[in-house]
Amino acid sequence: MHILITGAAGMIGRKLTARLVKDGQLNGQNIDRLTLIDVVAPERPTGFAGAVEVSTIDLCAPDAAAKAVAGKPEMIFHLAGVVSGEAETDFEKGYRINLDGTSALLEAIRAANYKPKFVFTSSIAVYGAPFPKSIPDDFHLAPLTSYGTQKAICELLLADYTRRGFLDGVGIRLPTICVRPGKPNKAASGFFSGIIREPLAGQEALLPVADTVRHTHASPRAAVGFLLHAAGLTREQLGPRINLAMPGVSCTVGEQIDALRRIAGDKAAARIRREPDQLVQQIVASWAERLDAKRARDLGFKAEATFDDIIRAHIEDELGGTITN
Amino acid sequence: MHILITGAAGMIGRKLTARLVKDGQLNGQNIDRLTLIDVVAPERPTGFAGAVEVSTIDLCAPDAAAKAVAGKPEMIFHLAGVVSGEAETDFEKGYRINLDGTSALLEAIRAANYKPKFVFTSSIAVYGAPFPKSIPDDFHLAPLTSYGTQKAICELLLADYTRRGFLDGVGIRLPTICVRPGKPNKAASGFFSGIIREPLAGQEALLPVADTVRHTHASPRAAVGFLLHAAGLTREQLGPRINLAMPGVSCTVGEQIDALRRIAGDKAAARIRREPDQLVQQIVASWAERLDAKRARDLGFKAEATFDDIIRAHIEDELGGTITN
Repeated sequence: MHILITGAAGMIGRKLTARLVKDGQLNGQNIDRLTLIDVVAPERPTGFAGAVEVSTIDLCAPDAAAKAVAGKPEMIFHLAGVVSGEAETDFEKGYRINLDGTSALLEAIRAANYKPKFVFTSSIAVYGAPFPKSIPDDFHLAPLTSYGTQKAICELLLADYTRRGFLDGVGIRLPTICVRPGKPNKAASGFFSGIIREPLAGQEALLPVADTVRHTHASPRAAVGFLLHAAGLTREQLGPRINLAMPGVSCTVGEQIDALRRIAGDKAAARIRREPDQLVQQIVASWAERLDAKRARDLGFKAEATFDDIIRAHIEDELGGTITN
Repeated sequence: MHILITGAAGMIGRKLTARLVKDGQLNGQNIDRLTLIDVVAPERPTGFAGAVEVSTIDLCAPDAAAKAVAGKPEMIFHLAGVVSGEAETDFEKGYRINLDGTSALLEAIRAANYKPKFVFTSSIAVYGAPFPKSIPDDFHLAPLTSYGTQKAICELLLADYTRRGFLDGVGIRLPTICVRPGKPNKAASGFFSGIIREPLAGQEALLPVADTVRHTHASPRAAVGFLLHAAGLTREQLGPRINLAMPGVSCTVGEQIDALRRIAGDKAAARIRREPDQLVQQIVASWAERLDAKRARDLGFKAEATFDDIIRAHIEDELGGTITN
């Protein structure tokens, strides 16, 4: 099997690549070729027996999308995109990368006249407040960010290209990925990871919102699991509604902190410093708190059961299994 | 006030133009300039005191959209588009006209750096089966046609451009417009009008579906009313969810025929010949039967109360007020 990953240099892209290299197969087929593309150079994976092509390309550049699918990869994981904050501050870049890039890729596939499986990472940012207590699978898409708008449009395109038989698509709406490894970033959602990651590393973390704020999370490990599971679903299983909200752990910030305390002790939890930030509070208030994700659960998508599990996944995958502080 | 109408040569475009010329004003302001554009030459209205510019342009052509808004019309009615059937048979044309054309117009407005009111005619084709008994305002957009996909994407763009302050948009999802004047066309929905229009004109009409088929209708007169009412709504009234399902009369084909019989007698109703068509039956089965349209009704949008009213509107507006057969 030949697999193409766009956005391969990103956090999820790297983890997905590592997992595919480790497994050596997908859906019971050997992986013999990997094409990894991104706007920054993706790392060449080690320990992979098959052919690897690594390219630094922007899908919006002329012929770039056609080149990306020239080898007719049977499986495409389309992860490329700019994040929510950047799509909001740079209107044109957001539409260019998140919408025009996806559209170019879909059109290149149609022009190449073959029918790959296409897994697209959407986001729960396709929803916009006000929300019911828990968002049902048939809740309307009324995004309140340009990022969410771009994701929703790509979902619609993907569904139509699938219905027309140009490809075999599935869109997965990721909840907030937590605990994100690496340095703190400026995303408004960054603190959800920061209040766990920093204390576990012996560092102080700032909490800009109230302990009562509720949100839905899944670990990076769960996100990779969603991608692999989506890749294995058939058209018959999916039916016409190919875009699915993923499951996650819905909990409050207070419950996140309780879990941290249970796993790493009072000392770790005490490293969280409350510093209210009105702008972050406003942004977060428009985000989904809880999703039914009934269809995804029925189709076998699995997230962690508790936030404790999410912290444990972080400790295992990023900290070598132990807490040193 | 300077008003731009795209798709001005179409059935609704012509009726809207005539109404604006007759009223001479909109939202309490005199209309002093009309710009009418379409891919086929729009008729120049008679009896209008202000300036009229009539252009045959395709919004997707280079600079066409910029030219269309060069005069900075404060009010834009964007009606241009290819119909459902054509968007399905010609994939590229549908996306070019319905999506790229709208996108070009939105971008031209952003580049012109002014903030017009923008009324967009969407469609209940943004919804896809399976449906609840009545579609609520927060039901998801899962279209089952390329046309519905294109309309849904334009709605999302319109909402984001509005949220970003580039324009002041409102999208109205029209139900099936019935009774359409003129000759029978090949649209799958054509018979809904045909079974009223043809018998009233003394001609036979074919009915391809069962009498039990339920659908939602509004007259051309009501559609023009929706457009004018939408043009008068403020941002505050609309809130962030600017795309609205319009009200209509939900009734079965049997109830349509009963209304025809009440108004035009048994002789007219007898001109309907049942000729089942499996393809039309299949297509129609995926369409919305009933919509809450609660927000639209609360905002003052008005459709006919009964299908009898829809037939009477047709007789008044198209047949000079009397039935001759």
